[in-house]
Amino acid sequence: MSINNAVHRKAIDIGKLAVEMTTAAGSGHPSTALSLAHLVTVLMYHRMRWDPKDPWNLASDRLVLSEGHGVPIIYAALADLGAVIGKDKAHARPMTREDAMTLRAIDSMLDGHPNPALGVPFFDAATGSLGQGLSVAAGLAAAARMDKVDRDIYCLIGDGEAREGQIWEAMDFIADQRLTNCVAVFNCNQLAQSDWVSPGQSSEIIAKKAEAYGFIARTVDGHNPEQLRKTFDELHVVKNGSKPLAVVARTVKGWGSELEQGTDKHGHPVKKEALQNVLGELEATAGDLGVADVTVGDELQIPPIAAKAPERKTGPIRVDFEKGLEEAGLLKDYRSGKPLATRQAYGAALLALGMADRRVVGLDGDVKNSTYSIWLYKRLPEQFLECRIAEQNMFSVAAGCAAGGKIPFASTFAKFCIRGYDQIEMAIITGANFKVVGSHAGVTLAADGPSQMSLPDVAFFRGFTHATNYFGEPAVRYFFPSDAVGCFKMTELMANLNGCCYLRTLRAGTAALYKPTDSFEVGGWKVVREGKDVVLVGAGYMVHECVRAADELARAGKQATVIDAYSLPLNADGVLEIAQRNGGRIITAEDNYTGGLDAELAIAIAERGAQVRLTPFEVRRIPKSGREPEDVLGYLGLDYKRIAAAV
Amino acid sequence: MSINNAVHRKAIDIGKLAVEMTTAAGSGHPSTALSLAHLVTVLMYHRMRWDPKDPWNLASDRLVLSEGHGVPIIYAALADLGAVIGKDKAHARPMTREDAMTLRAIDSMLDGHPNPALGVPFFDAATGSLGQGLSVAAGLAAAARMDKVDRDIYCLIGDGEAREGQIWEAMDFIADQRLTNCVAVFNCNQLAQSDWVSPGQSSEIIAKKAEAYGFIARTVDGHNPEQLRKTFDELHVVKNGSKPLAVVARTVKGWGSELEQGTDKHGHPVKKEALQNVLGELEATAGDLGVADVTVGDELQIPPIAAKAPERKTGPIRVDFEKGLEEAGLLKDYRSGKPLATRQAYGAALLALGMADRRVVGLDGDVKNSTYSIWLYKRLPEQFLECRIAEQNMFSVAAGCAAGGKIPFASTFAKFCIRGYDQIEMAIITGANFKVVGSHAGVTLAADGPSQMSLPDVAFFRGFTHATNYFGEPAVRYFFPSDAVGCFKMTELMANLNGCCYLRTLRAGTAALYKPTDSFEVGGWKVVREGKDVVLVGAGYMVHECVRAADELARAGKQATVIDAYSLPLNADGVLEIAQRNGGRIITAEDNYTGGLDAELAIAIAERGAQVRLTPFEVRRIPKSGREPEDVLGYLGLDYKRIAAAV
Repeated sequence: MSINNAVHRKAIDIGKLAVEMTTAAGSGHPSTALSLAHLVTVLMYHRMRWDPKDPWNLASDRLVLSEGHGVPIIYAALADLGAVIGKDKAHARPMTREDAMTLRAIDSMLDGHPNPALGVPFFDAATGSLGQGLSVAAGLAAAARMDKVDRDIYCLIGDGEAREGQIWEAMDFIADQRLTNCVAVFNCNQLAQSDWVSPGQSSEIIAKKAEAYGFIARTVDGHNPEQLRKTFDELHVVKNGSKPLAVVARTVKGWGSELEQGTDKHGHPVKKEALQNVLGELEATAGDLGVADVTVGDELQIPPIAAKAPERKTGPIRVDFEKGLEEAGLLKDYRSGKPLATRQAYGAALLALGMADRRVVGLDGDVKNSTYSIWLYKRLPEQFLECRIAEQNMFSVAAGCAAGGKIPFASTFAKFCIRGYDQIEMAIITGANFKVVGSHAGVTLAADGPSQMSLPDVAFFRGFTHATNYFGEPAVRYFFPSDAVGCFKMTELMANLNGCCYLRTLRAGTAALYKPTDSFEVGGWKVVREGKDVVLVGAGYMVHECVRAADELARAGKQATVIDAYSLPLNADGVLEIAQRNGGRIITAEDNYTGGLDAELAIAIAERGAQVRLTPFEVRRIPKSGREPEDVLGYLGLDYKRIAAAV
Repeated sequence: MSINNAVHRKAIDIGKLAVEMTTAAGSGHPSTALSLAHLVTVLMYHRMRWDPKDPWNLASDRLVLSEGHGVPIIYAALADLGAVIGKDKAHARPMTREDAMTLRAIDSMLDGHPNPALGVPFFDAATGSLGQGLSVAAGLAAAARMDKVDRDIYCLIGDGEAREGQIWEAMDFIADQRLTNCVAVFNCNQLAQSDWVSPGQSSEIIAKKAEAYGFIARTVDGHNPEQLRKTFDELHVVKNGSKPLAVVARTVKGWGSELEQGTDKHGHPVKKEALQNVLGELEATAGDLGVADVTVGDELQIPPIAAKAPERKTGPIRVDFEKGLEEAGLLKDYRSGKPLATRQAYGAALLALGMADRRVVGLDGDVKNSTYSIWLYKRLPEQFLECRIAEQNMFSVAAGCAAGGKIPFASTFAKFCIRGYDQIEMAIITGANFKVVGSHAGVTLAADGPSQMSLPDVAFFRGFTHATNYFGEPAVRYFFPSDAVGCFKMTELMANLNGCCYLRTLRAGTAALYKPTDSFEVGGWKVVREGKDVVLVGAGYMVHECVRAADELARAGKQATVIDAYSLPLNADGVLEIAQRNGGRIITAEDNYTGGLDAELAIAIAERGAQVRLTPFEVRRIPKSGREPEDVLGYLGLDYKRIAAAV
């Protein structure tokens, strides 16, 4: 049998299994799977250098399925190949056809969309929220380039999905970074969920767009094995040039079975009673192609992994506060007692971490001179990815870098992190080891106004801090430091924690509260001032406003305890104990909308039935510009005088 | 004086004022403003048909400043023209030069970025989070086309900003919808914040991309008045065709003043001591152009508004539940007692509202057959905008439609609404009258897995429900109906409320709990079952799980009260009173991460010092696929048995 016939036969075999799986599951997307059958076969059985027995190998080529709903075709290939599944190497075992039939069941590793942490290490990212995969692929490609590992990354993108702007952010990024080891493959089957794709997503226009974005675009028949093989074989030449490759594959949704073609087929499994008809049509297609009653032998060979996996330093990454400040040029200011901004301390810590460990990578959305990640960029440009003004892509690239073994810190204004919440959530589901850093947090950046202020971020991330990921760890750890020492140390801590961490930094300088010998932990809090009449709890800038309120109260003869609740999920018991010794009264002071410390403490109180009364101060109207932080705090009723008056 | 010289003179005059304003404010972006000086002059003084005395006019041409940080140049023009500012017509007054000098002050209407609701009705949208303006412009253009009003919409986009994928989602949308009354103007000054723009954002590549997206691209010298005028004058021909116009303007950041040019100038105001030098350079440039010591007279004429503003029906929009169900083909199922999905009731209500009032518009992201907005699409396609798989663009288009006098309902999976949280927040700041509808909410969609489940959405929106917008109303009203009647009525209520509303609908069908005569209100809740031992509080699907738990408890001799808390911000007092009569015990049951009803009630308890103990049930681990809702609820420990056992 020719290779081309072997591809046809294999595509039909795994296509049939994909159809059967979705029928067994009672849901899923068989018609999408069939449109991908040849692409997946050529990539997984012929082109990609990988090892089905070791899908964790950091030197193997990778496939990112951006249109995650097509996943049954890949599960089918994995089952056919007996590729390894399992949460980790200790639990690894070859996947079977029986595994495939458990698709979407509650006790199955095979989720409805790619979800690697459940036990499918072939994948690097949870996908299914569309448009994100190419950015993840770019992150994997960038990590490989940093490690000088010859590793190719393929990404399968739906044509309907190509309407997502993030795909084109990724195209810009790949071209900008000259990531010729990353191949964008568009699956142009012309049908979206509720309609045909628009003319702008036709194969002709996608190819034209790809060329305008600086790619070499190749349009092929996505069910023609020879065309596919030849096009992908161009990659070794492409990799020597500066323009990346985009493959625009014309395919048929429901290929091989007329019953599965046309509109209204998207996302519907074949009914049990129609299954044999569809399988019969696929087998008839095999007959038409001259591949009925044949078995694929060694015509299809998975090429061996060419490269050596990069060696990784393991163990904790330690950095020194004063040395870090010195490298960043901040030590003099710090020693003279000048207030530093936490964003500066973050920049210093990121630089120190980057110098200490090559896995540490900075990502920026064109605000590196505001977040101070610029210090890493200037000193170690090879550990830095300037993602320009495209935050969605940045966060998914970070997830890809993490899958490539890096420890990425993606920083921009906290407000602009909101742009990537969907991407961040998908990376959290993946279990990616990535760090999100939002600067200019809260309202105290003042002059630029609400379009630059992050207000719902605390509530958004707090929810994740109380959920565990598939590894049993908090899905997010949240940090909001109030001074430079705290910020430096928390950044160091984040580098040593696995998974997603969120750090909020401030535009304005804040006075030092801590000594370089102090330590900080997940869920930790610190008593900044001891009192006996009331407890003021804040974080970040508001800790300082609470201290000012405590000063004001002291003038009126009241002694307030001030607590810096710098991390979530908060260890609340100790705070409540202190509150009980302080008149059973807590005032929370926050520069964000409700759902942060107020919720954290109120739920702790109400759950325990604690005799503690809470008065929350937070942002209760949409802010506006003010020339100074105090102007805005005053406008919002969050200034220390108002806090003191509430006691 | 020639028109062209008048443009030069005016550009320099408003450029000087923009520089002065930012120096007075102590922050801002004068160099960006100078790059826009000629574009803004040609548009606002020569091309746009508008009335500086009536910027609210729904028939006037509009300008959307997507790169919001350039706003001082527009404030300067408004001040020069004495255009009207003020929160509403009752407070309208001509803007003065003195107003301009209050830029960014806490008591000023002139925010750091465009913020119409503070009192600058020239704008239709708060901008400043980049990449959103062109979508807003597209929404305004689409609304004008629906109303058959000859209205042109111009959008100014930065070249660095053109890296945002949403810009290209908007380009696709404008081409797809043939919105030739919408002009994309790229301000290519080559400099972003922290660096030069990438090659992919050069004027050459942007023009090439625009052509690939189906636009007529015209590259011009953005400081050449004649070229600009001639290019914009092409619009009347363009409007007769099917391809929209993109103007790619090559400009100079800091035009007219060498001191303001080059890197490191972005976002820095001119220092007070350097101000006269910069103004002097600008005046010297005037001399070079032969426009020193001249005053612009009537060379520049703002053309009169051509069209008549669309007539609007006012007053409440009323629809009938049973009639609505009948139109949607659901009445038979409803009457036979078959469980309907709330998403179906939403689809029926949207159709009924659309039939009742032409202002009601549906927007979809290619899931209309899942959200059931398809019924509106099929019956009234002219009141529907299929935005394809590009949620960011969809939400900003909705904001633009609202600015054009429409009542847009943008619906997609609740999970995919997360993709647009930044856009939604910007529209909330605008005060836009738009509705966000997220279907398949929570975890009970089951089989598709976490990539399709919305879990942080309740906490995200809850924060906004406790903040007021600039009109003193809740920034968001939140609804989560548990049955078809409730969903239909809440959709009707949303159409009659001004501002942003968020509606969560379910994939699965749910039993009827209410009668068509029942009414629902913002912050409302209903007792579904009366008991005396404990209060179970849920919303949506979880109300039914609570009812099942109450049944289970009844078998064990305990009587549970079940409350359907369908709206936020919740009127909590009554719930707490009931709890006090029910053993002082509340159990909340939610299909989302913490930060929803648990926070809402716990804060109410802790604030009041109420003697009520709360046990929250919510999602505490990242979910996975399960074939049935019950499988997933069981996996998460949220099934009725677990709830009952907790009592």
